[in-house]
Amino acid sequence: MVLDIISEVREKQPLIHNLTNQVVMNFSANGLLAFGGSPIMAMAKEDAAEIAKLSDGVLINIGTLAEAQVQSMIIAGKAANEKGIPVVIDPVGVAATTLRTKAFQRIAAEVQPTAIKGNAGELAHLVGMSLETKGVDSVDTDNADEITRKVANKFDTLAIVTGKVDVISDGEEMISNQTGHAWLSQVTGAGCLLGSILTACLSTTGTPLKQAYTAVKFYGLAAEQAASQPEVNGPGTFAAHFIDALAMDLSQLEGSSS
Amino acid sequence: MVLDIISEVREKQPLIHNLTNQVVMNFSANGLLAFGGSPIMAMAKEDAAEIAKLSDGVLINIGTLAEAQVQSMIIAGKAANEKGIPVVIDPVGVAATTLRTKAFQRIAAEVQPTAIKGNAGELAHLVGMSLETKGVDSVDTDNADEITRKVANKFDTLAIVTGKVDVISDGEEMISNQTGHAWLSQVTGAGCLLGSILTACLSTTGTPLKQAYTAVKFYGLAAEQAASQPEVNGPGTFAAHFIDALAMDLSQLEGSSS
Amino acid sequence: MVLDIISEVREKQPLIHNLTNQVVMNFSANGLLAFGGSPIMAMAKEDAAEIAKLSDGVLINIGTLAEAQVQSMIIAGKAANEKGIPVVIDPVGVAATTLRTKAFQRIAAEVQPTAIKGNAGELAHLVGMSLETKGVDSVDTDNADEITRKVANKFDTLAIVTGKVDVISDGEEMISNQTGHAWLSQVTGAGCLLGSILTACLSTTGTPLKQAYTAVKFYGLAAEQAASQPEVNGPGTFAAHFIDALAMDLSQLEGSSS
Repeated sequence: MVLDIISEVREKQPLIHNLTNQVVMNFSANGLLAFGGSPIMAMAKEDAAEIAKLSDGVLINIGTLAEAQVQSMIIAGKAANEKGIPVVIDPVGVAATTLRTKAFQRIAAEVQPTAIKGNAGELAHLVGMSLETKGVDSVDTDNADEITRKVANKFDTLAIVTGKVDVISDGEEMISNQTGHAWLSQVTGAGCLLGSILTACLSTTGTPLKQAYTAVKFYGLAAEQAASQPEVNGPGTFAAHFIDALAMDLSQLEGSSS
Repeated sequence: MVLDIISEVREKQPLIHNLTNQVVMNFSANGLLAFGGSPIMAMAKEDAAEIAKLSDGVLINIGTLAEAQVQSMIIAGKAANEKGIPVVIDPVGVAATTLRTKAFQRIAAEVQPTAIKGNAGELAHLVGMSLETKGVDSVDTDNADEITRKVANKFDTLAIVTGKVDVISDGEEMISNQTGHAWLSQVTGAGCLLGSILTACLSTTGTPLKQAYTAVKFYGLAAEQAASQPEVNGPGTFAAHFIDALAMDLSQLEGSSS
Repeated sequence: MVLDIISEVREKQPLIHNLTNQVVMNFSANGLLAFGGSPIMAMAKEDAAEIAKLSDGVLINIGTLAEAQVQSMIIAGKAANEKGIPVVIDPVGVAATTLRTKAFQRIAAEVQPTAIKGNAGELAHLVGMSLETKGVDSVDTDNADEITRKVANKFDTLAIVTGKVDVISDGEEMISNQTGHAWLSQVTGAGCLLGSILTACLSTTGTPLKQAYTAVKFYGLAAEQAASQPEVNGPGTFAAHFIDALAMDLSQLEGSSS
């Protein structure tokens, strides 16, 4: 299952329209390219719809938001809904400021997400639960299952809470994933890039639950592979080897984590 | 010839005003710095002319375009034309959307480029030829010679189509280059950074045809050198070693590719 | 002393609001994260005050300035002044254009900086001294002591001139630092990232002079450690290992530089 979805991404090289934050654009583009997708990062309102219609999936990430970008995100998201391609929303730092909270509400009111993905603090905020957060990061929680299920039901979407254990739910079924490595949390944009890779996986044939599980499992295995390299000695060398690992076959990654 | 142009860049450290896309700013600045140029990345309309006039060359790259940036690009380009320094236009994704197509037309109507550089799909679009493209990337073509010559003639400029084989023409003469490595296509902004390095080479004494040939040949040799390193195991480690290679002497690069 | 400040950063993980330029956002976030801080990079006017009030320090870097950002910088800086958290201003390229010169003046008129940090050319410009500069870079100078003292007195702030020798002054005392490595000048944003790390150090308990000395000394030691690695062969591999080194303990860095 996982293998089929990865193979399909690499065969089709889905074009993913990334409306994402300025901090991670380069890392997200390189990571998605390594994984097998084809990134396009356009943010202008004027060509948001045109690019979304060329694409196989749209990622909306509110990490460095400005008013003009909210409009582009809504335009691209609606175009994606019309075309029937997946839309992933990553509500980065949604609990931190009024601008972000309102921007998410405006986007969610007009765009039907295929998946909403974030850390526990961010997704908890979307369903009115309060969780200690620090800037755009959050602490781990015991309530990830509940948060995930509530987000899935409230927004009629797939919900993914990432953390030491990733939890995925469509509101009924629930899957968890434990691949990954602590160094991912030391690389800026690791969560954001996962959003791009998730969007690519959601553009394949199959069910969202399996596609999302494939994305987070593969991502975590790649992190484990990179962390196991003798040349990796900190977050800087880890990041380069992690990009390498995202380009590998599943068999190469599974061998390294055993 | 190639050697003289590289040496001159490293001696003069030309200041290159990069009006480029948000995805590649860091990579372009680091690559140009490694190569021997001096990058400045300012995008504001208010200081576009002032910075262009301080500079030795201007690069205009429309990869993540917004309306305000088109104005900055025209202002900087016109200032560069007045000062008599080279202007390179990289029409990234020009065929993908109306915004980009029109932006290129507006820029080209007001700014005389020293060189236009892009992949086959992008340059084909500029002369009304149609070529299959995917987002901002394009497929290889047998018509690169024709496309290059047509662009050179239509815009009275040097034209460079990059690909497995790079083709350069001033409308009469034609040079091709075969250095390079497939991993370049796995690094976001590899084409964009080449635009910066091309601009630096065009700021030396010499003829544009030789300067452009030097840029693409050296660039490809650096890619070959990086790809040959035993530590390189994918696009992430390749990118770091490629920046290293751009800082090397031509003799170091030529040794490695033999 | 140095050790205590580093330890405190790593224990508290201060949230640093970076209003910085587009070129270095990713590198600054990764470097600050490696060092032990917690980066947030928001630039929108609408949430500048809210984020500053959540934060432990604010960095204002005018490297790729646009008008809207000047307003965000003033809002965030004033909020930081009210909250009593440190504000660092890095006047990147301030001497290069009218936009930047005026933007700095407007910011400095409304925001009281805890520290102003830049290269000799930039800080010389702030006190009406003229120094040869090239774009956003500057040459070394014999007048760093005088420049630093004058900036400290004029703006009633800590002043730091970085270069081969870094000079720090509060207008009375003066400290210099000689750790560092030439390769830092080959990495785009090395000065900008130091601004983020300086802000993190200024958020600890202690005196600004010692905090700033800690920041520049540690930074230079990390560069020396990275440069001494056998895998480092140019600015690309250096950058990755430098991020690794920023995550190390002081004892690991001091061992390597002896």
